[in-house]
Amino acid sequence: MQTYKAPLRDMRFVLHELHDSRRITALPGGEELSPELMDSVLEEAAKIAAEVLLPLNASGDEEGCHYENGVVRTPKGFKAAYDLFREGGWTSLACDPAYGGQGLPEIVNKLVEEMSCATNLAFGLYPGLTHGAYLALRDHGSEELKARFLPKMVDGTWSGTMCLTEAHCGTDLGQLRTRAVPQPDGSYRVSGAKIFISAGEHDLTENIVHLVLARLPDAPAGVKGISLFLVPKFLPTAEGAPGARNGVLCTAIEHKMGIRASATCQLTFEDATGWLVGAPNKGLAAMFTMMNSERLSVGIQGLGIAEATYQSAVTYAKERLQGRSLAGAKRPDLAADPIIVHPDIRRTLLTIRAYAEGCRALAGWVAQALDLMERETDPAARAAADDFTALMTPVVKALFTDLGFEAASLGVQIYGGHGYIRDHGVEQFVRDARIAMLYEGTNGVQALDLVGRKLPAHAGRSLRRFFHPVAEFIEAKKDDPAIGPLVQALAKGFGALQLATAHIAERGQRDAEEAGAAATEYLRLFGLVALGFMWARSAEVAAAKLPAANGDAGFYRAKLATARFYMERILPNAFALLPAIKSGKAAMMALDEVDF
Amino acid sequence: MQTYKAPLRDMRFVLHELHDSRRITALPGGEELSPELMDSVLEEAAKIAAEVLLPLNASGDEEGCHYENGVVRTPKGFKAAYDLFREGGWTSLACDPAYGGQGLPEIVNKLVEEMSCATNLAFGLYPGLTHGAYLALRDHGSEELKARFLPKMVDGTWSGTMCLTEAHCGTDLGQLRTRAVPQPDGSYRVSGAKIFISAGEHDLTENIVHLVLARLPDAPAGVKGISLFLVPKFLPTAEGAPGARNGVLCTAIEHKMGIRASATCQLTFEDATGWLVGAPNKGLAAMFTMMNSERLSVGIQGLGIAEATYQSAVTYAKERLQGRSLAGAKRPDLAADPIIVHPDIRRTLLTIRAYAEGCRALAGWVAQALDLMERETDPAARAAADDFTALMTPVVKALFTDLGFEAASLGVQIYGGHGYIRDHGVEQFVRDARIAMLYEGTNGVQALDLVGRKLPAHAGRSLRRFFHPVAEFIEAKKDDPAIGPLVQALAKGFGALQLATAHIAERGQRDAEEAGAAATEYLRLFGLVALGFMWARSAEVAAAKLPAANGDAGFYRAKLATARFYMERILPNAFALLPAIKSGKAAMMALDEVDF
Repeated sequence: MQTYKAPLRDMRFVLHELHDSRRITALPGGEELSPELMDSVLEEAAKIAAEVLLPLNASGDEEGCHYENGVVRTPKGFKAAYDLFREGGWTSLACDPAYGGQGLPEIVNKLVEEMSCATNLAFGLYPGLTHGAYLALRDHGSEELKARFLPKMVDGTWSGTMCLTEAHCGTDLGQLRTRAVPQPDGSYRVSGAKIFISAGEHDLTENIVHLVLARLPDAPAGVKGISLFLVPKFLPTAEGAPGARNGVLCTAIEHKMGIRASATCQLTFEDATGWLVGAPNKGLAAMFTMMNSERLSVGIQGLGIAEATYQSAVTYAKERLQGRSLAGAKRPDLAADPIIVHPDIRRTLLTIRAYAEGCRALAGWVAQALDLMERETDPAARAAADDFTALMTPVVKALFTDLGFEAASLGVQIYGGHGYIRDHGVEQFVRDARIAMLYEGTNGVQALDLVGRKLPAHAGRSLRRFFHPVAEFIEAKKDDPAIGPLVQALAKGFGALQLATAHIAERGQRDAEEAGAAATEYLRLFGLVALGFMWARSAEVAAAKLPAANGDAGFYRAKLATARFYMERILPNAFALLPAIKSGKAAMMALDEVDF
Repeated sequence: MQTYKAPLRDMRFVLHELHDSRRITALPGGEELSPELMDSVLEEAAKIAAEVLLPLNASGDEEGCHYENGVVRTPKGFKAAYDLFREGGWTSLACDPAYGGQGLPEIVNKLVEEMSCATNLAFGLYPGLTHGAYLALRDHGSEELKARFLPKMVDGTWSGTMCLTEAHCGTDLGQLRTRAVPQPDGSYRVSGAKIFISAGEHDLTENIVHLVLARLPDAPAGVKGISLFLVPKFLPTAEGAPGARNGVLCTAIEHKMGIRASATCQLTFEDATGWLVGAPNKGLAAMFTMMNSERLSVGIQGLGIAEATYQSAVTYAKERLQGRSLAGAKRPDLAADPIIVHPDIRRTLLTIRAYAEGCRALAGWVAQALDLMERETDPAARAAADDFTALMTPVVKALFTDLGFEAASLGVQIYGGHGYIRDHGVEQFVRDARIAMLYEGTNGVQALDLVGRKLPAHAGRSLRRFFHPVAEFIEAKKDDPAIGPLVQALAKGFGALQLATAHIAERGQRDAEEAGAAATEYLRLFGLVALGFMWARSAEVAAAKLPAANGDAGFYRAKLATARFYMERILPNAFALLPAIKSGKAAMMALDEVDF
């Protein structure tokens, strides 16, 4: 059985103690955002996650979605759950009050997202994609489109999608073939076929708002000729109700490894009516507003799975009696000791925990920057936050999803053979987690984005948004009596990252294939150092608070112990990644294609 | 679509060039075993794998096994495939001619096993377990039992199982409850409930021979009171035909993540007639004959999956057109370049290849030692081979299955989103591969076996069977003009392994938890160095043969390129594992159970 209680104590730690929520509440628009309000939002979200979403996770996976004649039926219970979710206001949490949103910070929204990812990843995709489509439309849509569509998307009665992929083009959108022909009334007729459209068709909402990449008749070839269109399933009436059926049809859904309760659709557009979003031929940039938001959300999926896995695995490790402690029986009253006495079981659990809490801390840092981008009055501070989120987006997406999948597999290992049986629910985590490394840009594409675009951006200015705080922290704390050894470990990892960065800056500039050959390992190194920084900072907070912690002493002790574990057992991977990066492209490029 | 052609060229390399098959053919009993005979056996096996087993892999996964009223039906086509497999003599390949076997070396058998694992892992379990049961019975059964059962098991008309696990005990067999009561006729009545019994019930063979661990009435508690019994599904008549139904019933089959065409059974024994195998209360030792064989075979499963994944992923990477080479378009005649031009795709493919070929080379070394154990006339040489296989068994089991799972996941990554769709077949590799890390002793248990039993065995004598050849090779070849740099890389990894071994020998002797805390990372380090040794030796052979290779030049060039890739990109993990091992148990043992 999957077990889950939202990790509210650690979420409060991230929100208030590690990243200081007053940084946001002090800004204009934050007057009504007290820490207590945020905490109570998280508490309410925890209830719906545990009571509504979790009970449908295994059954939704078992049943999957059903397709018949263009109609998609989500698994039993999903519609009722979605209605509760929507009526509870969870779709509008971080949206603009101008469109009916609640104006809560994105950092709170991301913590709520983590809960839905942990309890029902497939369910979370439906409102999650709507939120991304909301952002793209809010930032790039005309006032008229925004007025017609955003309130319905914010209150969740209509949902959103992102329609990029075609059968012959995923990463390489330059090959896109879907066409849009302008009409005299200012609308467009969109025709083409898209695949892998999450929530492309379903029975949860009364209308579906597709954001579709397509080419205008006179568009230049390649990615510079792509425009973005809003194509609803039903054309809204003047009163804003779903009206005539539009020319978009779901022709099939995919049969997948996991997230089986999420409808992954093949969509055909046949002279479907749509409206341009943003400028002609600038569709990719507009879509990237949605894409970047989704990439962070996909990262959160990895985090959510890691947390859910941890909780299930700890529960099992405390219950399963097998063997005796190597240091002598701990529970002689029982037939055997619980397996949590064994060092290797603890190593496995702490690995998952170090991933989950480290990723949560880093997600909090990035989400706070998203809020600063929106709310800061100082343009320089907004720009700094923008640099930082752009830099960290590929890291969060790829690192969190890699670690989430690894965590899920480690969780199965705790269960032994029982983990392979569907009843226990942990194998579902592995299958569900696997998608997150693929969609919204494979993790290899994220790594190329990091080394090819984000590192050189603004002559390294983006990079310094991360490097400077880390370097300053190390300098200030390396001899700290409480956390000095942890900081020194971080410094070693950071030193490896600096060397790797210099290597790529030098070699990659001369030869793009050298950057490509180093990309995946560089992103991992970057991510591990970022988590290391979060762990060192978390330890700093914990060490300061522990003496007067009282009831929280166990929480802070665990923080310190897990920080140590991270530095000793996980961060040393930096010492493997650096020589691999420095070895260059020769070993992989020398082999002739025919010899593979 | 899964694609597979048995890697016969590399298999011949392992069999003849790397490990020298004449070492076996020169021994008594090997007179008729020419290299050509072995090659033709492999060629025939390749046909049945590709033509019979592969076409049933996806359909068997999709359909799964069906259970009704104690009867298990395997997926469509499995019975016919099994009949072909059996009639082709593939169940008897490496069995003793005294029982109708063909007397081929185990190294050939393991290569054939790799083919069935690569093409249909679930199918391969049925004959695979029979072979393990054959070995246990051959080594420990009475002459009467052997005469009655072995010929039928060798020719595959009857199959075998191993019945260890009960719901409350997997690793910890001391808790075993199944009972066996002696009868006046020398037989026993066996009663109890077993779970996770692969091939415990099915429709492929006319009888099933269960090897069952159970307790005699006067048995001491714990593992010293376990005996082994042979319990057939049908009691053989005097003529050797399946007679009266015995008291063993399949009560359910498991619903699993993968290997869905393999029947994983719950079995109830109710006064079932059985016969003792080996001495009373020595059942665990007898079962370990089977277990050790199965552990090596499970390792081969990881290898098979890695190879199958590699072939599918390479095919896709050469066909999928997406983006352009970072060094300029390679195929300007096409809409885009095939993705194999990208360094990150090549890095991924070469990782899988380095795992698969490295594991095949190591499997060959261990399998050759199995043959030496059986065939050597010199007792000292037999003992040396015995030491070596005992040492390497946990390494092969855990390392190969970890890498096989990782390889399968990397294969999915090559496919992007398409890899997550069931039609392409690569996600099945991930699901199928996952079991191998769990059964026949989880990989954590393998690691404890390595550090707790195999390292200290005979005062380190077993360990030296591996360390000495590696050290001698490094000493002899470190300045070799052709492979010197590869050998120097191996030497660094080996140095880390020596330091880690000294650490465990010293700390683990004083404190078993210290050995436990280091176990998993130590096994990985050991395994990576072992693969590194295989890669360096493979490179040595390739470098020597390349100048006169003619048609084989591409093969040897690829060997050298992959060896370099392994040393530069994979073996450096040693530099992460060593500090993790040396950090000791404190970080994981300090945390109170309640704080997890």
